[in-house]
Order: sequence, then structure tokens, then C-alpha cells
Amino acid sequence: MENTYKETICALSTVQGKGAIAVIRISGPESVKIASSVFLPSRGASLEETKSHRLRFGTIMDEGKVLDEVLVSVFRSPYSYTGEEMVEISCHGSYYIQQELLMLLVKKGAKLARPGEFSQRAFLNGKLDLAQAEAVADLIASENESAHRVAMNQMKGGFSNELAKMRDSLLEIVSLMELELDFSEEDVEFADRFHLQTLLSDVKSHILTLVNSFKLGNVIKNGVPVAIAGATNTGKSTLLNLMLKEDRSIVSDIHGTTRDYIEGYMNIDGVGFRFIDTAGIRETKETIEMIGIERSYQKIRSANIVLLILDAERSDNFEQGISQLASVIDNDNQSVVILLNKCDKINDEQKEGCLKQIMAYCSNNELFSKSILTISAKNNYGIDNLKNALLENREAMNHGSYSTLVTNVRHYEALKDAMSALERANGGMQQSLPTDLLAQDIREAIFHIGEIVGEINTEEILGNIFSKFCIGK
Amino acid sequence: MENTYKETICALSTVQGKGAIAVIRISGPESVKIASSVFLPSRGASLEETKSHRLRFGTIMDEGKVLDEVLVSVFRSPYSYTGEEMVEISCHGSYYIQQELLMLLVKKGAKLARPGEFSQRAFLNGKLDLAQAEAVADLIASENESAHRVAMNQMKGGFSNELAKMRDSLLEIVSLMELELDFSEEDVEFADRFHLQTLLSDVKSHILTLVNSFKLGNVIKNGVPVAIAGATNTGKSTLLNLMLKEDRSIVSDIHGTTRDYIEGYMNIDGVGFRFIDTAGIRETKETIEMIGIERSYQKIRSANIVLLILDAERSDNFEQGISQLASVIDNDNQSVVILLNKCDKINDEQKEGCLKQIMAYCSNNELFSKSILTISAKNNYGIDNLKNALLENREAMNHGSYSTLVTNVRHYEALKDAMSALERANGGMQQSLPTDLLAQDIREAIFHIGEIVGEINTEEILGNIFSKFCIGK
Repeated sequence: MENTYKETICALSTVQGKGAIAVIRISGPESVKIASSVFLPSRGASLEETKSHRLRFGTIMDEGKVLDEVLVSVFRSPYSYTGEEMVEISCHGSYYIQQELLMLLVKKGAKLARPGEFSQRAFLNGKLDLAQAEAVADLIASENESAHRVAMNQMKGGFSNELAKMRDSLLEIVSLMELELDFSEEDVEFADRFHLQTLLSDVKSHILTLVNSFKLGNVIKNGVPVAIAGATNTGKSTLLNLMLKEDRSIVSDIHGTTRDYIEGYMNIDGVGFRFIDTAGIRETKETIEMIGIERSYQKIRSANIVLLILDAERSDNFEQGISQLASVIDNDNQSVVILLNKCDKINDEQKEGCLKQIMAYCSNNELFSKSILTISAKNNYGIDNLKNALLENREAMNHGSYSTLVTNVRHYEALKDAMSALERANGGMQQSLPTDLLAQDIREAIFHIGEIVGEINTEEILGNIFSKFCIGK
Repeated sequence: MENTYKETICALSTVQGKGAIAVIRISGPESVKIASSVFLPSRGASLEETKSHRLRFGTIMDEGKVLDEVLVSVFRSPYSYTGEEMVEISCHGSYYIQQELLMLLVKKGAKLARPGEFSQRAFLNGKLDLAQAEAVADLIASENESAHRVAMNQMKGGFSNELAKMRDSLLEIVSLMELELDFSEEDVEFADRFHLQTLLSDVKSHILTLVNSFKLGNVIKNGVPVAIAGATNTGKSTLLNLMLKEDRSIVSDIHGTTRDYIEGYMNIDGVGFRFIDTAGIRETKETIEMIGIERSYQKIRSANIVLLILDAERSDNFEQGISQLASVIDNDNQSVVILLNKCDKINDEQKEGCLKQIMAYCSNNELFSKSILTISAKNNYGIDNLKNALLENREAMNHGSYSTLVTNVRHYEALKDAMSALERANGGMQQSLPTDLLAQDIREAIFHIGEIVGEINTEEILGNIFSKFCIGK
């Protein structure tokens, strides 16, 4: 193994808190020795004499005192997650025991692991490539079947295999070209230009498919973005709270760069939706408010579905709400669902009138709304219809024509860079540019593809990737 | 094994949430078969051919789809926590995988375990007695070294062994008495009354020690009760929030019968304190308010330490606060610490005056306060002094003369019942009551001691005990 670490690391690998059991992981050359120094097996051989993939029951001793009764799993290098010697201690899930055990391991020479450090070691020891390692974090974060399936395929190496095939094709092209360069003085064209062009355009169309899959992949990974638009006091937050409270799988600890502005996430029939609250939009000339409004516009533009909430008791505001949204929306790529809220406050005749008005304003302003629903967020009326409308208006959540979906911004950027390089090579070929220039572009594409699986990496890139992992993985 | 279950149960044993790994436990006759039906080992034998205490790596398959890559531990009966065939699946810690895997196991025939059901089976299969099983729950809940040590001693059988010894002594007494009864017509005293009396009084004094240890045991398990008294607006809640915010080991999910009224729990140097907020006490004649005041009195009486907060700017209220507390407090068994709050608002001279006034009122009212501290909760001034005062005024948190501490109300009640029965027997012996009456009292004491370890139990008692466990244990 090329990368070996001198340090032995340890961390809590299960969720922090009080539970039946907790698992503490140790990895590195001294892991068995350190675990053995605090562990007294209740029968049989010591940990150091224990073979890989065996479990031993016994007690953790701290200076003569029993800290806990535990189960210890032993994994011998290279047959472990990290590829190193590894030990997992399954202890009782009290705060006190978890803390004391970690402190005891540190006292015996282990270091507390950084987030993702186990996976980073697995990558550097060749157990996983970088795309697979990133998929581990995605797998843990996945909250619905589609996201889970994409992450699992990537972790099992599906994506890496596709990249490897493209890389092989490009290496074939570039090696033919370089062979030609070796004999350049003889002015022989070893590489059949037509053959090269065919190979190149196959790879290009493959990359294009992957690049295009990112929009869907991102939605699958992060949920369908739904913007909630409407003036203040139309009941936006009542609706949001109601929907999120109903759903038992709410993710309360949403964080990370792409999700900073999200108000809530919910699963409807296995499809993730993330709700984006937008500030009310109204006419203004003040600079600060202009900035706020521009931000709301951006949020609305980034959504796949826009929910426009109108207050049934304030029909005088319908036109303004609709015309303002119409000025922002892209009818071809975004779905608008209009919600007539507070319908409990009006009678059926008034409701009829409101709906007619809304439809008229929509057609005047060329706002195409797929559905207009009557709801009462306060009385929990019409919410099932709203959920159905969200499901109907989501983008197709099956993988469609894509065998692989790109879900990672880093991969997406690398693929786009590879694409530009190949387009330059392609153009150059058509203009009969010198072979060495073409070869250089193709090498650049190979470089960017290699970045994805980690064949090319820098400390900075690795640190950035693995710091987003959870502790203990 | 006497108790065998037909059902195979499963549950998440680690804390629910998103983490590096999660562990799902399966126990019961079909556990290996059920796990094997969804698990594809990546190499080697199937789970059904796997020996006890071995780990296998592979994939969980759900109708041809890969759900996860997992590690599976196999435990063969009786060498498992429950004594049954057991399997632990260590999967990736995503919500989705945890849910789907449990659903898959249920589909294959397992049932979701009730809270504590694994430990209940361990008890019924003779792996642990009842006191040991209860100690498992205490161990998981323990938040400081003392509580941990008590629970660990009990789990390891220290308490059970003491009980067994007492039970043996009592059985010796009762068998001697019954031998005498068999020969009663011959009017022979087989059992030397003096010897019996000595045996009995040894057991009695042992039980008395255990009963007396409960007060300390309860404090160690649940924290030192600290009542916060003082009129409204003296800064009670500011102080409480400040102290709890500072502490990173706050337990936010305090629940259960004994803790219902607790406002917060914190660890200071490994000693647990639980703060009990009391409503302000003032003179009143209204019935409803009287009830509230009586409740505050009860809370103050239940505390080991009472913090009386006085507002430095309202010296006119000092006397009332002190005299009212004096009417409730038990100077011999409770410590009072007086806090002069809002000291940032007064100068040194005024402070001096306040302290003199307070001391005068204390001596007038015969309220003995161990310390009077000047603080400013708002400015975080004097908080370290307060912490030190709490540590100084706590009851001795070392186990003192007690080798075993009783921490469980159920055990305490059973020991008190055993004690009464033995006192009756003792009194009867001195009055030379008939042997069969004495034997009956001693049998009753044996019964109550047996209740603690679960030699005598009812479905209701068991259901009540194990329902307080966490799921997966």
C-alpha cells in the first residue's frame, strides 16, 4: 500500500446521543494494540491474537475500574474499510461512556479523527476512488429512494467505470496521435482522422449526456426546489409550517452550501421537495429593498415549481401578485401553482368569482398556471390536493434515459471542463491543426476526467471534500 | 432455556439520526435465517453457515436492488446478549437505509421490538437478573462518573450478590424454624433463639444500610436537587439560562416521573445538579395561589440546596424573602446559598449595606445561610463562585461508607417492605410468638428481596420496567 499512516485515529461512528449502543471506530497501525491495552476479554485469546472479522466480548478497563462491557470487532489490513488495521468497539450508548472511552483511547495514543478521515484513508489506500468516497457521504445523506439509488450506483463504482471507459478511449486517441508525432518527420498519418473523429464524438456525446444529467441529478439529491411566493399575510408561513409539521421525516439539521436558504424539506411519496421562502415582492424605489427583491427573484428563478399564494379576502391584490410573478417566471421551464388561501372566510359564490378573476389576470399577463387550488392553511383544507399538485408538477423523478446521473457539483464542473477541451480538439481537427496541439487538448480532457475519481488530486481538494463528511466515517 | 420465544424481533439499536453508521439488531430463533434471506456475502460462506462471533461483509438485497453494503455480526445461542440467536447489521447511517432495512426485515418475518424487549428476553432467558437488567438502562442514562459507577456495579451483579447473601441467611433462619415445626409435637427448640436473633439482626442492619443509601443513590443517579427561590424579576430565569447555556453537556430530553418538574440539568466537575424552579412566594389569601405556593414549598423542601435570589436594587424586599424561606427550610438537612443579584447596578458601598442587611435578617429569622454571594447574572459575574458554592454544599458524592448504593425506587420500596417484615419477625421473636408466625414474616422478607432480582415477578411489573428502556436494548 502506497499511503501508510503512522497515526492511529478514533471517533464515534454512530449518531451522538443516548441510545442502546454506540460504536467507536479505531483505524491505523496501532489500533489493535491500543484497543488491546484497555480491553479484557471475558474468555479466549487477547485482541492481538484475534483474527480478522472476529468479535470478542469483554470489559473496557480504565486504571482498574470497569468502564463498560463491550463487543469488539477486529479487522486486519487490508480487509477493512480504510484498508488499515481497524477495531470497532460497540459499547453502551451513554454520553459518559462514549466520552470516557474516546478519552481513554486518546490517552493510549490514538488521535481524534477529523470528519471524513476514515474515508480519506480508504481513498488514499486505494479501497475506493474519489467518486466512490464522495458517494459514501451522499449515501448517508440520501433521504429518498431516487437519491439513494444514485448514490449507491456511484459507490458501487458504476460512475467510475463509465469514466474509466471514456478515459481509455481518449488514451487510445492520444496514443495514436503521439505515435504519429514520433514519426512526424516522415509525414505519415498513422491515425486515421475519420476514426479519431468518431472516437472523439462518441466520448463527447457521452460526456454531454452526463453534463445534462446534472440538473435532474441535483434535484434528486437535494429535492425539487419549490419557491413560495406571495405578499405578506397571505399565509405563507402558516402553510409552510403546516406542511412540514405533517411530515415525520423532516430534516431539521439542513445545512451546507447548497441548502443555506432552504426553509424546510419534506418527502411526499418518496420524492423530496425543498421549500424556499421568498420575501414578498412589491414595487419600491429604495435601494435596500431593491436588493431584497432581486434576491427573491433569484430564488423564484432557481425553483422548478413556484407556489403563488393569494389571500381570498384581498382580491384587490390578485392582479399585482400575478403580474409581478409573470415578470420573473420562465413559463417553459417552471411550473406555477396558484393557491387561493383563506377559503374558509368566503362563500362558494365569492370563491367562484375569485377563480374567474385569477384566470383572467393569468391570461392577461401570459402567466401559465398548471393548477389553481382553493385551500385553507389554517383549517388544513386542500393540503392533499396541494401535495398531489406538487407530485404532478415535479420533474420526472425516474432516471429516464440516463443510466448514470451526475449529482455532484465538483464532478459537473470537471465534466464541463473536459467537454470544452474536447470541443477545442474537435474544432482543431476540423481545421487540421497540428497533432501536438490536438493531443494537448485531449490530455487536458483526460486530466479533468481523472480529477473526478481522484487520479489527480491536491491536498486542498481532498481537504475540502472530506471535511464535509460526518465524523466517524 | 426455560423461556423461548417464537417471534424474531428487530430494532435500530443506535441513536436515530444521520450518522456514519447505524446498527440494527435482530434476535430470536429466525434471526439468522431472516438476515440471510436479504444478505449476499461478498465472499465466503452464507450467514447460516457462519459461526458465532464472526463478521461478514456483503450487500443487503431488496428484490434484486442493492439497499446497502453492510457488516453483519452473528451470535449463536446462548452466546448473545439475549441468549437467543442474534444478528447485528452495521449499515450506513442514512434515515432511508435504516427505515428500509427495518421494513425489509419485517417483510421477511421479523417484528419490531418494543422498548427494552431485548433486555427483557435476556432476563427471561437467565442472562441477567432483573436488577442487572435495570442497571443496563441506568448505565445508558448515567451522565457522570458516580452514576456510572453505581450502575456498572449493579450491572456486574454486585448488588445482586449482596441480596443473594441476605436471602441465604434468611433461608437458613427459615429452614431451621421449619425443621422445628416438623418436630413441634416433641417441643424441641432446634433453632437456638440467640443464634437466630443474631442472624436476623445482621440481615436487618444490612438492609437498613441499603435503605439509607437510597437518598445518596438517588442524588447520584438524578443529580443534586437545587431549588431556585426568589420573587419574580429578581433574575431567576436569567441565572438559570446562563448556567445551563454555559454547560455543553446539558441534557435537553429530560423526562420520566422523577424529573417532570426539572428545569435543567448540568454537570459541574462531574457532579450532576438538577435545578428546580419555584414560583415566587408571597402572602396571599386566594385559594388558587395558595395551591401554587404550597407546591413551591414542596419543591423547596425536596431540594438539598436552595438558592435564594435577592434583587440588589430592591432591598425593601430582603426581609420578606428571607423570612418566608426561613419558614419552609430545614436548616439541619438543607443548605441555603443567598445570591445578591444585579450587583452591577449598585456601588461597593451599597453592596456592603445590602450584605449587612441580609445577614441581620438571616439571624433574626434563624435562617442559616452557608454563603452569601454577590453576582450579576446579566453580566456573567460571580458565576464561578456560585459553581464552587454548589460543589461545596452538595452532599458527599463519594460513596462514603456505602459499598452499594440503592438508586432505584422499586428496589427501595421492596427493601423497605422486607425491612418491615423482618421487624415484625424480630418483635415476634422477643414476644416468643409461635414459630410458624415468625417463619411467615421471614418468608415475606425473602419474597420482597426476590422481587428485586426478579425471582418473583408479574407480567405487569416486567412490562412497567422494560417499557422505560430505549428501543433496541
